[in-house]
Amino acid sequence: MSVATVLTQGLKLAHAIIQAPLAGGGDTPDLVAAVSNAGALGFIGAAYSTPKQIIATASAIRGRTSRPFGINLFAPLTARFAWRDPTPTLARLAPFFAELDLPAPSVPQSTGASFDVQLAAALETGASAFSFTFGVLPTSAVHAIKARGMFLIGTATTVEEAQALEKSGVDAIVTQGSEAGGHRGSFACEFASGMVGSISLVPQVVDAVEVPVIASGGIMDGRGIVAALALGASAVQMGTAFLTCHEAGIPDAYKQAILAAHEDQTRITRAFSGRPARGIVNRFMTEIDSDEHDVILSFPLQNALTRPLRTAAAKQGRAEFLSLWAGQGVRLARRQSAEELIARLAKEIDQTIAVLQNTEVIGKEHS
Amino acid sequence: MSVATVLTQGLKLAHAIIQAPLAGGGDTPDLVAAVSNAGALGFIGAAYSTPKQIIATASAIRGRTSRPFGINLFAPLTARFAWRDPTPTLARLAPFFAELDLPAPSVPQSTGASFDVQLAAALETGASAFSFTFGVLPTSAVHAIKARGMFLIGTATTVEEAQALEKSGVDAIVTQGSEAGGHRGSFACEFASGMVGSISLVPQVVDAVEVPVIASGGIMDGRGIVAALALGASAVQMGTAFLTCHEAGIPDAYKQAILAAHEDQTRITRAFSGRPARGIVNRFMTEIDSDEHDVILSFPLQNALTRPLRTAAAKQGRAEFLSLWAGQGVRLARRQSAEELIARLAKEIDQTIAVLQNTEVIGKEHS
Repeated sequence: MSVATVLTQGLKLAHAIIQAPLAGGGDTPDLVAAVSNAGALGFIGAAYSTPKQIIATASAIRGRTSRPFGINLFAPLTARFAWRDPTPTLARLAPFFAELDLPAPSVPQSTGASFDVQLAAALETGASAFSFTFGVLPTSAVHAIKARGMFLIGTATTVEEAQALEKSGVDAIVTQGSEAGGHRGSFACEFASGMVGSISLVPQVVDAVEVPVIASGGIMDGRGIVAALALGASAVQMGTAFLTCHEAGIPDAYKQAILAAHEDQTRITRAFSGRPARGIVNRFMTEIDSDEHDVILSFPLQNALTRPLRTAAAKQGRAEFLSLWAGQGVRLARRQSAEELIARLAKEIDQTIAVLQNTEVIGKEHS
Repeated sequence: MSVATVLTQGLKLAHAIIQAPLAGGGDTPDLVAAVSNAGALGFIGAAYSTPKQIIATASAIRGRTSRPFGINLFAPLTARFAWRDPTPTLARLAPFFAELDLPAPSVPQSTGASFDVQLAAALETGASAFSFTFGVLPTSAVHAIKARGMFLIGTATTVEEAQALEKSGVDAIVTQGSEAGGHRGSFACEFASGMVGSISLVPQVVDAVEVPVIASGGIMDGRGIVAALALGASAVQMGTAFLTCHEAGIPDAYKQAILAAHEDQTRITRAFSGRPARGIVNRFMTEIDSDEHDVILSFPLQNALTRPLRTAAAKQGRAEFLSLWAGQGVRLARRQSAEELIARLAKEIDQTIAVLQNTEVIGKEHS
């Protein structure tokens, strides 16, 4: 079986399109099921979920589709982050909390469920695929996931990371180009070194590993999908394109921000979570990033500290305090159903390949 | 005539491939002529040349080919850069100069020929195409270039820049993706905002302008070319792939650095020229960029100040002091002749399109 068909035949997909896990509310059961029902692969981003929430979400999806879907977690943190006095950070965040009528920020008791308990729940969901970011999984986890027959997908931002993932036993690798919205998945390099554009990253990873490559980062339409396939990818993973779908569970202020944004209006920031992530520039990002002294704490503490702010901002429809994760292809975002999006993508893929076939000028000597 | 054929029919190219101008010695008459003789478009990067050098280079090319070639200049600086005392910069550079047995650095009398005199010479070269970076040309220059029947190409890093260029009357636009080696061409935005990956930039520019788009940034082989065409580009411009050609006039230490580099080992720096540019990380870049106080002067002054250092380093084969401009596709660089490279690209283009035609999984419902 060619690598190009491992995913589609193995997972019985009509389209080599994966809906990126959108941890943080985007990937509702409605969205995941709609994507899978349309012949692509819906995904639950469960990194911030408790085991109970994971089971409930999967059950809700199962009630809406009998087709395969996937689940995504963050790899366990391998290094303890350096402790730092949170007092300056709390003081920095206090005026923002006050502006949203929230009690003063405080250090949370917990930053979320541990990987082990999340994994145990994920194994019970009936998901057909398991993907992860931010590292390589422990061997025991790889074995447990494969014992369930799940298709295992790691995330790489460099060739070296892809090779480490292949060695760890993954079935496929998502390449995260620098264009991608949300958190940078880099784990074996400084984040800046891992900012490689998809058009460069995909072929270099394809040449370096045997497993299928799934391109992500900046892909928004059929042109981007065919480009990724030309580069050697077997499939694509798309996030931003699904965020403005009707079924996506993000606040409407967030959808509106994506639909109004330009390709030069996203930036990498650590302001929201402590980890570098690409989002549409807004007031919170601008103010925190322009601080003379950096008081941003490490992930996951910064993330937990800013959560009440983001939750309140979502309720109040105030995009200036939301983490507006989005990739660089934002001008191509549309309001539509997931089914309409996937049907459109399939049509655009065929059209793009037809145009390439009829291009008379390439590869033909007429000098 | 479709936009896809404007370039190839208008310029009588067999291949929709442009050799990027490689100002700084890469684009020898041998390279430019070999590229044009192979059916692609060779280009002289004349931004650092005197009128006399421009005429001599063009004459040398004319002696080697009767096919079309192009010439590139930097658009004239629109804003006077702020004067700054160069004393700290001279002091910072002094130890590097001493290490290469050079006299102490000094502020040069001139930073190079003016755009007007360069343009006057360029108009006399018989070049068929004229491209430029760093801005929009004055109307008088646009008229003079078109009066000579030259095909006029501007360079954009964002949609807004592409629209400004189209309005100014260019015949085509090069999109410079964030992957590109060498100087960032951004002129209507902060350089960071213009760091858009090709897979996102190309389709968004294609949707926004009527003129043909030439994709550049990270394209190294037939896969990248087909990807660019799928994204809507009519042609590609490639720099790094030509730098390791036998005919390229860069020091062998520079070629070796490219051939040894990985995709995560290039970075944007202002250290060499005062303008952001992507090159392979080396000692000079690392040391200057890690200075607590930035003493880098503006372009073109920093560029002129560091020139003796780079010239001596080239002679002495010391890559640690060279500006090793290169894009993020470096792992795909090969030692070969320009003719071999272009023949290989043509073959890879055909192979890639054939693979896409035979991909059974995309756009076909079999659920």
